[in-house]
Amino acid sequence: MKKVADILPGLLSNNSKILRRSEIREILKLTRKPGVISLAGGLPYPGLFPVEELKDIVATVLDREGEQALQYGPTEGDPRLIDFLVQWMREHEGADIDHNYFLICSGAQQALDLIGRVFIDPGDPIIVGLPTYLGAIQAFRGYRANLIGVPVDKQGMDVERVEEVLKEYSDKGLKVKFIYIVPDFQNPSGVTMSLERREKLLELCYEYDTVTIDDSPYRDLRYEGEPLPMVGPMDKRGYAFSVHTFSKIFSPGPRLGWIVANPAIMDKLVMAKQTADLCTSSFTQAIMFEFLDRGLLKPHIDKAVEHYRKKQKAMLEALDKYIPKDAGFDWTHPEGGVFLWVCLPEHMDADILFPKAVEKKVAYVMGSAFHFDRSGTNTLRLNFSFPSKEQIVEGIKRLADLFKEEL
Amino acid sequence: MKKVADILPGLLSNNSKILRRSEIREILKLTRKPGVISLAGGLPYPGLFPVEELKDIVATVLDREGEQALQYGPTEGDPRLIDFLVQWMREHEGADIDHNYFLICSGAQQALDLIGRVFIDPGDPIIVGLPTYLGAIQAFRGYRANLIGVPVDKQGMDVERVEEVLKEYSDKGLKVKFIYIVPDFQNPSGVTMSLERREKLLELCYEYDTVTIDDSPYRDLRYEGEPLPMVGPMDKRGYAFSVHTFSKIFSPGPRLGWIVANPAIMDKLVMAKQTADLCTSSFTQAIMFEFLDRGLLKPHIDKAVEHYRKKQKAMLEALDKYIPKDAGFDWTHPEGGVFLWVCLPEHMDADILFPKAVEKKVAYVMGSAFHFDRSGTNTLRLNFSFPSKEQIVEGIKRLADLFKEEL
Repeated sequence: MKKVADILPGLLSNNSKILRRSEIREILKLTRKPGVISLAGGLPYPGLFPVEELKDIVATVLDREGEQALQYGPTEGDPRLIDFLVQWMREHEGADIDHNYFLICSGAQQALDLIGRVFIDPGDPIIVGLPTYLGAIQAFRGYRANLIGVPVDKQGMDVERVEEVLKEYSDKGLKVKFIYIVPDFQNPSGVTMSLERREKLLELCYEYDTVTIDDSPYRDLRYEGEPLPMVGPMDKRGYAFSVHTFSKIFSPGPRLGWIVANPAIMDKLVMAKQTADLCTSSFTQAIMFEFLDRGLLKPHIDKAVEHYRKKQKAMLEALDKYIPKDAGFDWTHPEGGVFLWVCLPEHMDADILFPKAVEKKVAYVMGSAFHFDRSGTNTLRLNFSFPSKEQIVEGIKRLADLFKEEL
Repeated sequence: MKKVADILPGLLSNNSKILRRSEIREILKLTRKPGVISLAGGLPYPGLFPVEELKDIVATVLDREGEQALQYGPTEGDPRLIDFLVQWMREHEGADIDHNYFLICSGAQQALDLIGRVFIDPGDPIIVGLPTYLGAIQAFRGYRANLIGVPVDKQGMDVERVEEVLKEYSDKGLKVKFIYIVPDFQNPSGVTMSLERREKLLELCYEYDTVTIDDSPYRDLRYEGEPLPMVGPMDKRGYAFSVHTFSKIFSPGPRLGWIVANPAIMDKLVMAKQTADLCTSSFTQAIMFEFLDRGLLKPHIDKAVEHYRKKQKAMLEALDKYIPKDAGFDWTHPEGGVFLWVCLPEHMDADILFPKAVEKKVAYVMGSAFHFDRSGTNTLRLNFSFPSKEQIVEGIKRLADLFKEEL
């Protein structure tokens, strides 16, 4: 007698056949062993979550508008939340936009998924960084995009190479659907894209009739230097969209992110959202709005910046102290965000080293996980937002021990 | 100088090109005119939402586990919530399943979307009711399924016709990917599928190597008669999945639904969920769990059943009193749920009548919206969960006036 597993191969979609479990999630399971210091995840530090403030905020929301907050809401999002974001984007980013540019999503991951849905047919070329955010790789692969990798160096994505790719595909009569960038303190590398490259990227979009997606989860977590403009506000023709989230500057629990895009494309994104889950939670949006309306976001970000800056400093100091740079190790010094990126000497392989690291009770994510083509085997990502300063220092010591043994 | 709207036609995916704004949403905008009694929507009655209970529940959750409730959570869902649902499904549905059968989603709409993603390639045949839930039509159309309509009569979906379709496609060498049913108090018709048809449907799945999706948002809102078994627990081979939601028995605000499916398919659904939005809100799941753990669900459902039963009675009585059945009008008498379905005399067209109804300050949804092939123009859907009893009676009177004028 047949079971459903026997008939599934004939029933599954082609898109689902290529779905893979997130490698990081499998890795994270290994790091849960007792005594392992995990520098692998990317979680915000929960001690920063405004738990106390939320008690009063939720009570206020339930008192004032409980029935509305528990009902279905508009697909586009809570209009009050959007109005706040319009103002925020004007004041902080110089963006000359109104509420028609906004869609509230269930986190930034949903934003990426909806963008994939609206732009990608199987086989469509899109440009992503080598390395880039793993969730974006998964989202775009889920639509069977043809990912084209462009190296990310210390100035961000190599736009000269982007130009070559665009020209090459254009010559073949193929359309690159979009260019996906994480310009500020990129996950995983921590690198920030230079102003010159941002400008050049936009010019390339105009020249080759394609668009750019600016994914900026960490932008407000800057520990040094001056912010560079987002690509969106530099663009007066609607070619640049951006993806944002409250996960890193508030908390991931409520699952709230947003897309800023030209109204010409917003219509499609809203319809895709309606199909995907009708609307984002009215309840968590109402809570978020009350938090913002009380003026709590800016002081909260300031507090997070102070906290993460110290942890980043601790990690950089430990790397300087314990890892022998002259033996061929190198790492980034990001101006913000929650990650550092380490390059090992060419002959070392972070995939192979990983089980040995877990034996030494320290974990990272191998850089190859962020290269869709499995390159970057001599790189790895370190997180400093979640572990304590003591864990950071001890974790780097353990890594250094391992590296020295391998030299 | 080109704007993004000029280049979009070359950039959009084929899937996005066929996306349409939900007709109901456009209709609902019309019903917001002052004085219009809307029997059009499908919103739960907000006076039932447990606002007071939630104040204490949220305070408890924030006190006990604030940091965890505001962090990312497992893609599969909060294990405590799943454990509760395992028990609930065992006790209430006789389902012999464990936690590996569960995925918590952002509402039932996301469940349908994920199922579409995992099963449908463009052009794949699937079977849906004529009529059926509009959000399912949208979700499956979003993947460009080839929808095959099978009439729904007073015993539910016509399984004889299902068999003909399955045979016809099988003979052509084509695979029907799944059969989508809303067996209990169907949206929009209110009809419940007979036990005989449920059994036959499962037999057909076995015979033709396809699966059935049982969408049951209203199942616990039964006002009379005895529950019939869900298809899932009748099935020992994993061919029947089901989709559930807290939206109608608790509130839609937290966006919480779940899928019950054989572990063989769950793996794909979990990966699709990860790609779609990483995880469902830990915060709203923790709140929901606390509500369930306090034993509040059953009494809350009982209260909702009492409330909606009275409203349904009011609507049925008003229909009996004001609408001339002998002139060719007919309507369903559902044993539960939140909708009634009205059949007009053959020569009347609910699409054409709609603007006249709004002039008379009453609104419904035309039945054609629930027929993907635009048939059913002499049918319409009435909702009794959201309006007050007084509004229901007055609304039916206004409809009756209109119908009499048209006769």
